[in-house]
Amino acid sequence: MDELELLTKIEERLRVSDVRVAIGVGDDAAVLAPMARGTVLSVDVAVEGVHFDRRWLSLEDAGYRGYVAALSDLAAMGAAPVAGLLSMIVPSAASDGDVLRMIDGAREAALLYGAPIVGGNLSSGAELAMSTTVVGAAPEHPIERRGARAGDALYVTGTLGAAALGLSLLSRDESTREHAAVFVDRWRRPRARFDRVPALLGVASSAIDVSDGLVQDLEHLAKASRVGAIVESALLPLEEGHAELAAALGLDGDLLALSGGEDYELLFTAAEGAVDASIATRIGSIVPGQGVRVLDRSGSERVLPRGGYRHR
Amino acid sequence: MDELELLTKIEERLRVSDVRVAIGVGDDAAVLAPMARGTVLSVDVAVEGVHFDRRWLSLEDAGYRGYVAALSDLAAMGAAPVAGLLSMIVPSAASDGDVLRMIDGAREAALLYGAPIVGGNLSSGAELAMSTTVVGAAPEHPIERRGARAGDALYVTGTLGAAALGLSLLSRDESTREHAAVFVDRWRRPRARFDRVPALLGVASSAIDVSDGLVQDLEHLAKASRVGAIVESALLPLEEGHAELAAALGLDGDLLALSGGEDYELLFTAAEGAVDASIATRIGSIVPGQGVRVLDRSGSERVLPRGGYRHR
Repeated sequence: MDELELLTKIEERLRVSDVRVAIGVGDDAAVLAPMARGTVLSVDVAVEGVHFDRRWLSLEDAGYRGYVAALSDLAAMGAAPVAGLLSMIVPSAASDGDVLRMIDGAREAALLYGAPIVGGNLSSGAELAMSTTVVGAAPEHPIERRGARAGDALYVTGTLGAAALGLSLLSRDESTREHAAVFVDRWRRPRARFDRVPALLGVASSAIDVSDGLVQDLEHLAKASRVGAIVESALLPLEEGHAELAAALGLDGDLLALSGGEDYELLFTAAEGAVDASIATRIGSIVPGQGVRVLDRSGSERVLPRGGYRHR
Repeated sequence: MDELELLTKIEERLRVSDVRVAIGVGDDAAVLAPMARGTVLSVDVAVEGVHFDRRWLSLEDAGYRGYVAALSDLAAMGAAPVAGLLSMIVPSAASDGDVLRMIDGAREAALLYGAPIVGGNLSSGAELAMSTTVVGAAPEHPIERRGARAGDALYVTGTLGAAALGLSLLSRDESTREHAAVFVDRWRRPRARFDRVPALLGVASSAIDVSDGLVQDLEHLAKASRVGAIVESALLPLEEGHAELAAALGLDGDLLALSGGEDYELLFTAAEGAVDASIATRIGSIVPGQGVRVLDRSGSERVLPRGGYRHR
C-alpha cells in the first residue's frame, strides 16, 4: 500500500456522522461546532518501548489505552468528551496493518466515549508513537488542580493499583493466574471516569486523574493548591483479591495502590461528607502546609521509595 | 535538572495573559473561551532526521518551523489562530537545554501569530520529535478543499519553491552564496499566510496550503473537489533571483516551484478575475475531469518525476 492508499483507508474508517463535527478528517483541519462554555484541550503520547510493549499488549490495546489516557485528563477537568486527533510516528519496520490496528484501537475508545477522531497526521520515524490530542466541552466551572483547601477530605473513584498489578502479571508471565484477568484488563483497557463527572461538578474543589501514581499525582494537586495532604493506607480502595494476588507475587499491594500508575481514576477533594461512598472513597485529608504524608495501616508514617512511574 | 524542575521551567515561560485562554499550562487540560463559530483543529509533527537536521537548523528554528507548519493548516481553512499544544518526545542524548530551545522557537512563532502554547506533554523516546496541535476560531464559512469548480481560476499567494531552494543551499553548504539569505530564511522561518485570509473568505471556493509541493497539494485539492487542474509554468511566482540561483546550483528552478515543499503559501481557487494580483498570483485553471496537468514555459505538457516531498 502506498501512502495515499493508506491515508484513504484511514479516512474511510474515520468518517463520522456527528452533529458536533462540522468537518472531520480529510481536510487541512477539522471544524467542531461551537461549545457554549469553551473548549478543553489536552495531549498525551504513547511511545513503544516507553509506554507499551508489544510482548504484553496488542496494537489495538495500545491505541485504545493511549486514547483513554488522553481522555482521562478531560474527565479530571469536569469536561465532556467531544473529539480527538492522532499524530502517529511510524518506523519503516511497522506495516500498514500495524498502523491500522493502532488506529482501530483508538477508534474503539473514541466510539465508546463519544469523542470521534477528527484529524491526524502520519510521519515516518525511528519508533512507533501515537500522540493523542483530545477536545472536550468545558463545564460552567472547570475543576482545577489548585482548588483544594485545608479541611477538605480527599477522595478517589474506583480502586487503586489494579493496573500496576495487571502490568506486573503480564510482565512476569503470570497473567493466567486465577483472578488475574480483571487486573490485566484494568491495565490493557483502562476507563476514563466521565461517569463520575456529574457527581463531581459543583462538589469537587480540585481534581486530577491518577496517571503517574496516587502519591505523585496528589503531590501535583497539593503543590498547585499550596496545601499538604495525608493519605491513610487503611482507607485505600483495592480491587477484590488485590492484596492476595500481590502477596502471591511477592509484591506490596498497598505500595502498588500508592504509587502504581495508569489507574486513570479521579483523585479529588471536597468538603467532608459531601461525597457519597457510592461515588468515591474517602482516602485522607487536606491539611495546611505542604507535601504528601502517607500513613500505613497501623497509622505510622510511611516513606515511599522515590520514582515510581516516570515516563520522563 | 530533574523532570519536575524542567516542567516548572517550561510552565514559567509559557505563562500567558490572554482573554481567550481561561486555563493555560499546568493543569490536566487547558480551557479556551467559547468560539462563536466553532473550533478548528489540526496536528502536525517535526521529527529529527525526517523533517529537520541539526546540521542545517538550530533547535529554535526547528521549533519555530514546526509551529508555523501546523498553524498554516488553520490559515488554509480561513480560521484565526487561537492556541497550540506541544507533545515532545525527547531522547536521552538531548539535554534539557535542547528541549527549552525547541520550545522557545515554538513560543516565538506562537507570540508572532497570537496562538499561545496552552498545554503539552513530555515523553522519553528514541528520537527528538515535536507534535504540534493548533486550535483556531472558525470563520462563518470555513474554506474546504472540496469546493473547486471547473471554470474557477487557480491562485497561489507569495512565491513558490523558495523554501526548497533554501534547503538545497543549506544541504549543499552553499548558504553563503550571494542572495542566498532570503531563500534560506524562507525554509528556516516560514510564514503562515493569515495575512491573506481576510481577502480569501467569501472569495475562495477551495484552499489548501502548499506543504508537500504545489502539484502534490493541488492533486489533493482536485481529488477532493472531483475536478482536474492545469498549472502554467510561465505563471509561477518566483522569488527574485530564484531562476539564476537555481541554475547556478544545477537545479531546475521551475521544478522546485512545482514540487518543492514547505512553502506554506495558500493555494486556492476562485472565480476568474475575483482576486487582485496584490493578493495572489493566478497560476492556472480548474477544468472538468481529474488529475493535474502541468504546462512548461513553451505550453507543452510536462511530466513531473514522482515522489518529491514525502515524509512517509
